[in-house]
Amino acid sequence: MTHEPIARLIAELGRLPGIGERTAARLAYYIIRASQAKSGQHLAQDLAQALGDVVTHVRLCEVCQNLCTTKLCSVCASPKRHKHVLCVVEGVEDLRAIERSGFDGVYHVLHGALAPLDGVGPGDLKIAELMQRLKIGDIQELILATNANVEGDATAMYIASLVKPMGLTLTRLASGIPQGGELEYIDQATLGRAIAERRAF
Amino acid sequence: MTHEPIARLIAELGRLPGIGERTAARLAYYIIRASQAKSGQHLAQDLAQALGDVVTHVRLCEVCQNLCTTKLCSVCASPKRHKHVLCVVEGVEDLRAIERSGFDGVYHVLHGALAPLDGVGPGDLKIAELMQRLKIGDIQELILATNANVEGDATAMYIASLVKPMGLTLTRLASGIPQGGELEYIDQATLGRAIAERRAF
Repeated sequence: MTHEPIARLIAELGRLPGIGERTAARLAYYIIRASQAKSGQHLAQDLAQALGDVVTHVRLCEVCQNLCTTKLCSVCASPKRHKHVLCVVEGVEDLRAIERSGFDGVYHVLHGALAPLDGVGPGDLKIAELMQRLKIGDIQELILATNANVEGDATAMYIASLVKPMGLTLTRLASGIPQGGELEYIDQATLGRAIAERRAF
Repeated sequence: MTHEPIARLIAELGRLPGIGERTAARLAYYIIRASQAKSGQHLAQDLAQALGDVVTHVRLCEVCQNLCTTKLCSVCASPKRHKHVLCVVEGVEDLRAIERSGFDGVYHVLHGALAPLDGVGPGDLKIAELMQRLKIGDIQELILATNANVEGDATAMYIASLVKPMGLTLTRLASGIPQGGELEYIDQATLGRAIAERRAF
């Protein structure tokens, strides 16, 4: 049954996160309809090609572990970036988000966060690569920009414990009220932290 | 920019129905992560292969226009089906749904419904193939199982107008309260039709 092309396409689409069986079937039939149409939308071919290209060409930047198609990613290769400020993030999506905010330092992508219950330990993250980089580079400040949740906090604390003896400046992202946030709708943990970390006006 | 593999994969995934830019990015990074993982999940390759197979192998059944990989689909090829009862459906998804209900006749897939405002006329549907089939086959009953909406009703009426002179039995699916339906929550159109088409107890 799973050798039948339509059933197999549905099964493969169903492996994607957030795509259930019904959605997978809807997508599969949409793709098949597009490929049967006389106008020839080439959706299936284009998507297959894009998937193949990603496997063939995308690799990790040798320095920061960002995704790229060359030896160095565009951030590490840029002469305009401040190479002594290093921002540690969990994933490439986080890097992209921080890029949009206009940060002009460099990054290190961990590709995950510590989650002992899910079997993710320090060896599964790019922490050894980070330590290597700190030893040979001239990093002055390390910004631990992991997510503000249990796994992210644990990961930041673990890295901090390794890095502290090296004597460089260690920082975290500020916690508090998001821009546009109305106090009435802010959860108590965020509000509590915003009060505890209040700043001079 | 769109020649960059990751951006292109996001763009191709974004062409799928119901997949916005953010979801496309989430799926793309998931696929890339899976392909970078040491365990090698082969998700990208498997999906690309499934897409290619669908394009190469899936075709329309010569008789009923169902999707299949052979000259005839499994329904048309089966000697157990009642070939004189023909159920006309808009799409392959509808055929699958009716199959699950245990129907034992055969089908004709229109691949759409009349929608003049969207530029879909009779020539865009498999109506000529249906008429050809009715002329040469020994169909006794035609069940017009189009959707219970404006386009489906218009399509059924159009086909009925073509078929009526041929003197075969024309039926539609029953309209009414769905199984498990509570009257309080049934929309008034459905309830009105259920009352108008009430049957002897």
